[in-house]
Amino acid sequence: MTDPIFKIGLIGARAFTARELLQILARHPRVEICALQARVERPTPVGDVFGNLRGLEFPDIGEIDLARLTKDLHAVFLCLPHTAAAQHAAPLLERGLRVIDLSADFRYKDLKTYERVYGVRHPAPELLAKAVYGLPETRRPSIIGASLIANPGCYPTATVLSLAPLMKRDLVVPGSIIADCKSGVSGAGRTPTDGTHFCNANESLKAYKVTEHRHESEIEDQVSRLAGEQHAVTFVPHLIPMDRGMYATVYAQLKEPVTAENIQRMFESYYEGEPFIRLLPDNVLPDTKNVASTNFVDISVRVDHKRQRLIITTAIDNLVKGASGQAVQNFNVSFGLPETLGLI
Amino acid sequence: MTDPIFKIGLIGARAFTARELLQILARHPRVEICALQARVERPTPVGDVFGNLRGLEFPDIGEIDLARLTKDLHAVFLCLPHTAAAQHAAPLLERGLRVIDLSADFRYKDLKTYERVYGVRHPAPELLAKAVYGLPETRRPSIIGASLIANPGCYPTATVLSLAPLMKRDLVVPGSIIADCKSGVSGAGRTPTDGTHFCNANESLKAYKVTEHRHESEIEDQVSRLAGEQHAVTFVPHLIPMDRGMYATVYAQLKEPVTAENIQRMFESYYEGEPFIRLLPDNVLPDTKNVASTNFVDISVRVDHKRQRLIITTAIDNLVKGASGQAVQNFNVSFGLPETLGLI
Amino acid sequence: MTDPIFKIGLIGARAFTARELLQILARHPRVEICALQARVERPTPVGDVFGNLRGLEFPDIGEIDLARLTKDLHAVFLCLPHTAAAQHAAPLLERGLRVIDLSADFRYKDLKTYERVYGVRHPAPELLAKAVYGLPETRRPSIIGASLIANPGCYPTATVLSLAPLMKRDLVVPGSIIADCKSGVSGAGRTPTDGTHFCNANESLKAYKVTEHRHESEIEDQVSRLAGEQHAVTFVPHLIPMDRGMYATVYAQLKEPVTAENIQRMFESYYEGEPFIRLLPDNVLPDTKNVASTNFVDISVRVDHKRQRLIITTAIDNLVKGASGQAVQNFNVSFGLPETLGLI
Amino acid sequence: MTDPIFKIGLIGARAFTARELLQILARHPRVEICALQARVERPTPVGDVFGNLRGLEFPDIGEIDLARLTKDLHAVFLCLPHTAAAQHAAPLLERGLRVIDLSADFRYKDLKTYERVYGVRHPAPELLAKAVYGLPETRRPSIIGASLIANPGCYPTATVLSLAPLMKRDLVVPGSIIADCKSGVSGAGRTPTDGTHFCNANESLKAYKVTEHRHESEIEDQVSRLAGEQHAVTFVPHLIPMDRGMYATVYAQLKEPVTAENIQRMFESYYEGEPFIRLLPDNVLPDTKNVASTNFVDISVRVDHKRQRLIITTAIDNLVKGASGQAVQNFNVSFGLPETLGLI
Repeated sequence: MTDPIFKIGLIGARAFTARELLQILARHPRVEICALQARVERPTPVGDVFGNLRGLEFPDIGEIDLARLTKDLHAVFLCLPHTAAAQHAAPLLERGLRVIDLSADFRYKDLKTYERVYGVRHPAPELLAKAVYGLPETRRPSIIGASLIANPGCYPTATVLSLAPLMKRDLVVPGSIIADCKSGVSGAGRTPTDGTHFCNANESLKAYKVTEHRHESEIEDQVSRLAGEQHAVTFVPHLIPMDRGMYATVYAQLKEPVTAENIQRMFESYYEGEPFIRLLPDNVLPDTKNVASTNFVDISVRVDHKRQRLIITTAIDNLVKGASGQAVQNFNVSFGLPETLGLI
Repeated sequence: MTDPIFKIGLIGARAFTARELLQILARHPRVEICALQARVERPTPVGDVFGNLRGLEFPDIGEIDLARLTKDLHAVFLCLPHTAAAQHAAPLLERGLRVIDLSADFRYKDLKTYERVYGVRHPAPELLAKAVYGLPETRRPSIIGASLIANPGCYPTATVLSLAPLMKRDLVVPGSIIADCKSGVSGAGRTPTDGTHFCNANESLKAYKVTEHRHESEIEDQVSRLAGEQHAVTFVPHLIPMDRGMYATVYAQLKEPVTAENIQRMFESYYEGEPFIRLLPDNVLPDTKNVASTNFVDISVRVDHKRQRLIITTAIDNLVKGASGQAVQNFNVSFGLPETLGLI
Repeated sequence: MTDPIFKIGLIGARAFTARELLQILARHPRVEICALQARVERPTPVGDVFGNLRGLEFPDIGEIDLARLTKDLHAVFLCLPHTAAAQHAAPLLERGLRVIDLSADFRYKDLKTYERVYGVRHPAPELLAKAVYGLPETRRPSIIGASLIANPGCYPTATVLSLAPLMKRDLVVPGSIIADCKSGVSGAGRTPTDGTHFCNANESLKAYKVTEHRHESEIEDQVSRLAGEQHAVTFVPHLIPMDRGMYATVYAQLKEPVTAENIQRMFESYYEGEPFIRLLPDNVLPDTKNVASTNFVDISVRVDHKRQRLIITTAIDNLVKGASGQAVQNFNVSFGLPETLGLI
Repeated sequence: MTDPIFKIGLIGARAFTARELLQILARHPRVEICALQARVERPTPVGDVFGNLRGLEFPDIGEIDLARLTKDLHAVFLCLPHTAAAQHAAPLLERGLRVIDLSADFRYKDLKTYERVYGVRHPAPELLAKAVYGLPETRRPSIIGASLIANPGCYPTATVLSLAPLMKRDLVVPGSIIADCKSGVSGAGRTPTDGTHFCNANESLKAYKVTEHRHESEIEDQVSRLAGEQHAVTFVPHLIPMDRGMYATVYAQLKEPVTAENIQRMFESYYEGEPFIRLLPDNVLPDTKNVASTNFVDISVRVDHKRQRLIITTAIDNLVKGASGQAVQNFNVSFGLPETLGLI
């Protein structure tokens, strides 16, 4: 008796995250990619859009039309902009499909926060209650069997995983958390802009959207939920001259002195058995290069004893654990598959 | 008695080449920048367009309007697209100004070649006879006092300077010349495109416009003029993941054996006294890094004796010697100023 | 009945090529990595040497000692410098193991050529006759069952695959072939030098070892064997500011005019069924980015009709098809496994 | 009457900082470079060490030998490692020369701090009292006429200039300051290492020496002096895949709410008339690209009102304002020359 194959679709197939998804899913032994849709004028071979995927077997990319999706799909990945994602989620769920949404549309429980942060009306607010936040290391049980999974943002993934083991303990001074984050240029998406022009991005490093980035509220929301109380987080993103990779350097004031060993044990215990978390030995610091094109999360925790402060450094690949790899991880968890399928 | 100051204007002030020109001219002891014009909606400080020039003293950039140019200008640099440049050159020349045009509009003597290669009608064909090709190392006398100077293309600059010392001698097999050229991304201009997106250009190397690049005919034209007979040149440009820099690797079949020493002497003699040509010692090869942000041309000549072939490697900065630095060099030559003013 | 598993060893486990091999073999469904050896002072976890492989299951790296190799190995990959590789090959072959050697030691049939080019005495000349050159697309039959496989150099791989479909036909003017090749910095190996220092390599492009690179003779040797007559090839390598990727721009003079369609068909016919060769459609040119971390070879053929010259552009990943991927491909071919195992 | 020319020497002429100094001083209208010394085996032309300086006029680099220095020098720049610098400073001062030292040897007033942080005995502790810390924007009066100037570290330059306008006011909660700093690879110096290998540094971002970097104590020392009370500063440096450029993102908790306008005015007032400080308008953030190869310091101040925290972002070129440009600025200040000579 062979293992069943899950039939999946992908809408928004021209995004960088779609390219990553296709690359991962092509190696996934329990998945068949049945339908690809995007804003295209005519059916387009995947290799014409993503030259690196030329010669691999995929269906052509068709225009976006839910009616044309294969009948017996099990799940659909949405690589669409916010609001577009929510518009497509509802009819897909009605058809009984599971939806893994890579946009921000279902990441908040609170409608008002979403509408304030994104400056739009939510197209399907009735689904917010149904959605689960897909960060398996913090809430795996709720993802098992879930039909609507909100894949986290890249910055929140790196930042929340830096803090999760601490937040249940009464260790950190509220309001003291600072997340100084750094992202490769692919985080800015596929559309060419002045900022993503090679000649502007290369040999350039800059902060952007200081105190104004949308992920700030997602980080605060998740950190506060884990803590059981409100935590304000200062979040400053920076653009780095590299293609992929994300780094969070997270600072938190300690309420009272703790030893490095205790903190290390706290992290080890919280992340015990996690297949994608690599807590680094104490002479090693994370490097984005080491997680590139993988779903791994490299974490190091240091104590600045002199200033009674924790310094957690965390590296992920923004397109994998920060997007498409985590989407597949959520898919695996949702359907009860081994969590690393297609990912290691 | 102090040296006279030359008043200059610059039209097309938002291009990468304009940024370089401003940077060079700001250090030029005999120049006053009096007018900057570009497609802007309102007068715009230079520092708002080019963050690196913030805090330096320049007039604001105004809209393009020849009537508003300062009355007593001596010269105008045109950083405009082809055809737009030619449209503006005529009225400027009528006012008695000298024009240094960085576009392709006046690089050909033959109207038909221009119109075929660029696929447009020339807006001012009557000026072609008046224009001089601004490659001082090959035709300095004609540039002195010239009122309309066609600044060469970047690829032709690197390639023609690789070949110039050879072409008067009957050394090279006609049709045997191949110019395998490599350019940094700034050569593609300021407009953001898929090809200049950091995530596509980084860790990427690709040939483009093989046998179809417009500079091919400019190279053939100049090489043939220097040789006094028609020379076909195969030209293949490549895009390299760096901001600035251009490299020409030029191959030419020898009619009969020559020694490396003879060839070296031929180059030394041809380029004797040239302030920007650096003929490298025989254990050194050009590196774009060494000419970055300079007007230097680093050249090395090797003989592949086994195959009776010359291999000339040449590095320039595509934005400086390949564009704006050469424009200032032409300006200096035209007005009889020391050729290195503002450039070394 | 399950498929048999092949037990393999790897000597020289600290090289960049070893890192790639481990990454590929970790996904290979028919391989068990049993022994890793390198110049280490004590047994060292793979993750301490290659941070990206931390957390994956490998044996520790032990010191180089053939006596300690697992008894029932099937094959050993050698990632050693030349001469060191040959020294280890003989005893391994005597034990009945198959050897895939990534060094240059067994790439030549002619002892004198090897000793002249590499400037050393060959430690095991008696094995030269036994060795097969592991470029499956050109000589697959001889690799099946072979016990000593000389994995080709990266430049020869890209260049020979650019030319192979042409060489049996009497199309190309002897002596007219020029291979202008470009390599990412990883081609220079793991040892830090002035040339590989980020600050020297970044924003830098330079030719090196013009007419003096060792791969020139390997290219000439292979091209001449395919042609059945001696072909001289001018070969100029360039260093490009990227990590991985290799590009060959190959020029060849045609004896008589041919159409682009005929040439294209020649290539299609020669490479029909090849799983790793992607002949690109005529509006697309190879890009190193599209083959990064894959075993694919992207090839485009253009005819410069005006100058009766072929221009073939070819992109590979120097560490994969140019080294470790091809080594696994050879392993698969040698043992009669599906050729793409572990590689697609 | 012409302006007097200052004769200068440079010891340690092979460092990256020496290359920058030579480039700046070559354009300095009041300087003559009379002597270059470094660890060389024979007199070496500058162009052989720094290919970009080939063809410019410099004396050859000789071995280090103070006795051979030109007799009538006015000043010497030391680009030597710590302790070596101090060893050479004493005899130079005795000869009546002014010394601008780019090492850490004279940056501390407190001998014990220096010896603890650098883990060495100071070779010339008697000179500590004589030395002035060469950050002109914070202590120009003491630099005028100074004979021994300790050129600040790159990280302290960026961090202290981010904080200086605040420290005299009783605004910042002591112990709350965090400096999250990012540096290009040239900050790691010229020696090739695993960390500076292109293949490791490219597409890589990592924190290093968290809570252990030597510049931390220099930052605390300077900030505390400016404040008139002890301030602990958490300092985390990161290595960024770019050649040059440094970024400080500095966080400080406010004792009580302040408006952005007040803070902005505080900075404007403190830095009024400073030729190298560019306080950016409130819609612009610093970018290392905009200060590359310049002595400018781009600063932006933001208030995170929600968390009552200041966020100051500052960009410098680590090799210019962070080293050689500041050295020339100090030279100019010391000798009473216009401060921007050679630098704008």
